[in-house]
Amino acid sequence: QVLKNIFLPFPAILGHEGAGIVESIGEGVTSVKPGDKVLMFPLPECRECSSCLHPKSNFCLKERLVSISLTFFHPIYGTSRFTCRGRKIYHLYGTSTFTEYTVVHEIAVGKIDDDAPMDTVCILSCEVPTGFGAVFNIAKVTPGSTCVVFGLGGIGSAVLMACKASGASRIIGVDIKEEKFPRARTLGVTDCLNPQKLKKPVQEVVVEMTGKGADFAFEAIGLIDTMVATLESCHPSYGVGVIIGLAPTNSQLIFDPMLLLSGRTLKGGALGKYKTRSCIPKMVTDYLQKKINIDPLITHKLPFESINKAFELLQVRTEQILQDFRYSFL
Amino acid sequence: QVLKNIFLPFPAILGHEGAGIVESIGEGVTSVKPGDKVLMFPLPECRECSSCLHPKSNFCLKERLVSISLTFFHPIYGTSRFTCRGRKIYHLYGTSTFTEYTVVHEIAVGKIDDDAPMDTVCILSCEVPTGFGAVFNIAKVTPGSTCVVFGLGGIGSAVLMACKASGASRIIGVDIKEEKFPRARTLGVTDCLNPQKLKKPVQEVVVEMTGKGADFAFEAIGLIDTMVATLESCHPSYGVGVIIGLAPTNSQLIFDPMLLLSGRTLKGGALGKYKTRSCIPKMVTDYLQKKINIDPLITHKLPFESINKAFELLQVRTEQILQDFRYSFL
Repeated sequence: QVLKNIFLPFPAILGHEGAGIVESIGEGVTSVKPGDKVLMFPLPECRECSSCLHPKSNFCLKERLVSISLTFFHPIYGTSRFTCRGRKIYHLYGTSTFTEYTVVHEIAVGKIDDDAPMDTVCILSCEVPTGFGAVFNIAKVTPGSTCVVFGLGGIGSAVLMACKASGASRIIGVDIKEEKFPRARTLGVTDCLNPQKLKKPVQEVVVEMTGKGADFAFEAIGLIDTMVATLESCHPSYGVGVIIGLAPTNSQLIFDPMLLLSGRTLKGGALGKYKTRSCIPKMVTDYLQKKINIDPLITHKLPFESINKAFELLQVRTEQILQDFRYSFL
Repeated sequence: QVLKNIFLPFPAILGHEGAGIVESIGEGVTSVKPGDKVLMFPLPECRECSSCLHPKSNFCLKERLVSISLTFFHPIYGTSRFTCRGRKIYHLYGTSTFTEYTVVHEIAVGKIDDDAPMDTVCILSCEVPTGFGAVFNIAKVTPGSTCVVFGLGGIGSAVLMACKASGASRIIGVDIKEEKFPRARTLGVTDCLNPQKLKKPVQEVVVEMTGKGADFAFEAIGLIDTMVATLESCHPSYGVGVIIGLAPTNSQLIFDPMLLLSGRTLKGGALGKYKTRSCIPKMVTDYLQKKINIDPLITHKLPFESINKAFELLQVRTEQILQDFRYSFL
């Protein structure tokens, strides 16, 4: 078994994205100092492992296998930096940002500009790079191309903004919640599809709409069915499907390999394949200099005390999210 | 259903590769004339469909859907150009080369040099481009990289020759028939693995041998298990798996999508993504000019009368091959 699933132990402090201010640093930390504004990354960058040293990849292996950051929550070997009334509280993805104070490894932190607005740039810690990078780094969307985006939530919206910025001439958005369509249209979607209102599978409709299939298709939901639909929506000979949604634990992607033999490509990637510490702080600067715009991706801002209300607004149940947390060793 | 399987009707003339001499041409044929030496391609090039017009793809759609070539053997609409004692005989992949005379559509034929040795260049009609193109066009193997090749038959051998030519520093060959290892070593394989003699799954052995996984992995067999092993043999963050084997009809590739989320790529392609008429005749010229060498890929030459002996030499049963023939509409 190449993949080994380790389930998140509880109780844990959740939250994998976040911006913060360094309160104190441990021994040997040199890249940040108290008072620095930082982003925390669920994917670190050790700059020593084979992933970090490779020019085109970012899935840092050190974190996953040997770093202290891992032991923060590793259920077997792990120690924790958090306690509550004497009881051990586990970490999540080495960040645990749903708290006023957290403990993060240096390799998972990037210093950002002093004038960065924390309540906006926090989404650059995962959501925005995941969507932008899926388009710019993984799919490499070309001008004039046709794109399909499954899921028009935060990440899907970042995907379609990047498709638009790449010069895609047609962007088909797919979601079962039609209340997301107006915002998607303002961000560049040319066609909106609600699979529940179609008489045939959405991938067949996409194939018909595009002649033979889209140039690029993105899965930004995390469901097996839409992952297969993503692949099937692509042109048989040159279509590229990109999976960025996190599937439920132990799920299996099942499809006929003939879908690949005609020439399709299926790719994936975390954090848009950006090397987190090296690349993402520059995106904060780009935002401040108005080279990129992430404002349309923010629909609500709530104080920390209202975090449960935020989950309600998302229309997801917290328990449902928790069920799906896992950590895979690769 | 994006894929629709149509099974090959019988009786049929098999044989999907071949070189020949044009005996006569139909109305409107301009690219070849009687007396020309030609290769016949199981994948045509109409130069009009979206696949042919795209710079990076070759899976001609015209053949599959509308051309006369298709109707040669289409079980529902099809007519045939072959009869035997008054009975209709079907075509295979538009070529049907296991015969002294065949009928092929112009878009599936490419003129080659007059001095080309037919009993050698015939393997450029599918086997060699499939293997070479998997490396040069699909994976784009880089100098110094580590490659794994599952299956060391004709196509697998072409793959490893191309890996060697691309400057791969380590090439791991995998096969259960160890009699193939000596030739593989002369062609560039640095390590040979027989999965039946390993104590753990071959992909785990490859991952250990390479640190974290290979840069590139190729499936040149056509089995689901080795397709998954191909993906799992790749480095989690930058590994590229390429599937060129034809899986049994209606088989399903099943794997955890987490294998992709860390950054792996899974690709496929027919005829190495070479545009057949435009690119392959030039490979014949390259062979004549000794720019490429395909001689090591030929182990036996038999006269047409001994074709059944050739199948025996391959150690495959003809019936087994026939069971697996299918034609997929995309």
